[in-house]
Amino acid sequence: MTCHGDDNKLSLDSIRDSLIRQEDTIIFNLIERIKFPTNPTLYKQPSSFNISGFSGSLFQYLFQETEALQSKVGRYISPEENPFFPNNLPDSIIPPTKCTPVLHSAAESVNVNEKILDVYINQMLPLFCTEADDIGNLATTAACDIQLLQALSRRIHYGKFVAEVKFRDCTDEYKQFILAQDRDALMKLLTFEAVEEMVKKRVAKKAGVFGQEVTLNDSAKEVKGKVDPSLVSRLYDEWIMPLTKLVEVEYLLRRLD
Amino acid sequence: MTCHGDDNKLSLDSIRDSLIRQEDTIIFNLIERIKFPTNPTLYKQPSSFNISGFSGSLFQYLFQETEALQSKVGRYISPEENPFFPNNLPDSIIPPTKCTPVLHSAAESVNVNEKILDVYINQMLPLFCTEADDIGNLATTAACDIQLLQALSRRIHYGKFVAEVKFRDCTDEYKQFILAQDRDALMKLLTFEAVEEMVKKRVAKKAGVFGQEVTLNDSAKEVKGKVDPSLVSRLYDEWIMPLTKLVEVEYLLRRLD
Repeated sequence: MTCHGDDNKLSLDSIRDSLIRQEDTIIFNLIERIKFPTNPTLYKQPSSFNISGFSGSLFQYLFQETEALQSKVGRYISPEENPFFPNNLPDSIIPPTKCTPVLHSAAESVNVNEKILDVYINQMLPLFCTEADDIGNLATTAACDIQLLQALSRRIHYGKFVAEVKFRDCTDEYKQFILAQDRDALMKLLTFEAVEEMVKKRVAKKAGVFGQEVTLNDSAKEVKGKVDPSLVSRLYDEWIMPLTKLVEVEYLLRRLD
Repeated sequence: MTCHGDDNKLSLDSIRDSLIRQEDTIIFNLIERIKFPTNPTLYKQPSSFNISGFSGSLFQYLFQETEALQSKVGRYISPEENPFFPNNLPDSIIPPTKCTPVLHSAAESVNVNEKILDVYINQMLPLFCTEADDIGNLATTAACDIQLLQALSRRIHYGKFVAEVKFRDCTDEYKQFILAQDRDALMKLLTFEAVEEMVKKRVAKKAGVFGQEVTLNDSAKEVKGKVDPSLVSRLYDEWIMPLTKLVEVEYLLRRLD
């Protein structure tokens, strides 16, 4: 969804379609990233290499500079995009589009990217990648990381739109728990186990399809796919869906501010 | 292939495996790029927006700055990577890996990225994308462009390795045409129509598999895929394979320098 100006477009159906399409993006980017090993040198803090005027990891440097560049052409004007390094981002040279804002203004303060980055480096990469350093491919690896992290972040922060449409559909029900600032009740209201099970099954199936080795020979023997479908299912179960719901709850708690 | 230090690894088989795997990368990135329309505003030269100290297009600015960033962490030390904007690239802070060079030193002077960029913007994008501007997604579109262009460039410049291994395998045959600087004879020697037909069929099949909408419902009605397989076949036929062979010929012409 490019512009939410037309409120009729903000339906749970259109949001669901976008979330389903984003699954493909996440799996494509995941398959591309895990061609490479973990590459711990990239994330070592401080970096073993000297970056003048910078004290973090190589990856942090690359990611921060990439975000600054993308900020100039308006990436973070979009309510769908949330920066990982929001401090000191340069202004956009592109004027904002004239959409009526769909989200409550409190949306801007909901950002779980710090958690996403932590989970990504410390849990996801070791789970999906061979443990090794491939110094010759650090830049390419980091480029894949950035694409994948941005796709994960977009998916997870889409929770703001999910929460907004749910709030609009059942305002009274949500209102009571928001006024009581009752996290647990909101979380319960937002959780649909049957839907979550379906998502886990679907992403595993997608991982199998997109990760397969396609050959012209139909009778070719089964080879191991590029990504383990059960791990993709776990990625959604343990991190993507819980973090999305965290975004939903955080957004709702501020929805009446 | 990370390091070609061990000459035994430079076999036509290992190169072919890499080229086949790179097809998947190209198709994934293509599918992701063509979610967006052509976005001519991005490539307009000079840009309609004011980028201080820069007179090219928005895209050129973003791409050039991204390459500069990646150059610092050693992207262009790798013989597999060729910059689109080779002038004034900053030095790498990562030391080069200690591989015995596989390619002849003339390899560095073979770079067809200017042609790739021209074909990409003026022929490929109009063929694959809806003609429109989506100002809210310029940064995201450009990020996809860069990933895709780098994948295309890597694939096409892999021709250097193909040429090297072919030269080593049939040195005498190639030598005569190189000494005569006979482009046409070299091109003929490098062309295997049956192989090219197979590649075209395989990438079309891959486009069908990776572009499909995967649902849990097996009996779901056929929906239009995310990319037209016949166009992917054409992409290989008209641009990727001819440009790869151009790289091979250019490399061979300088192989005895």
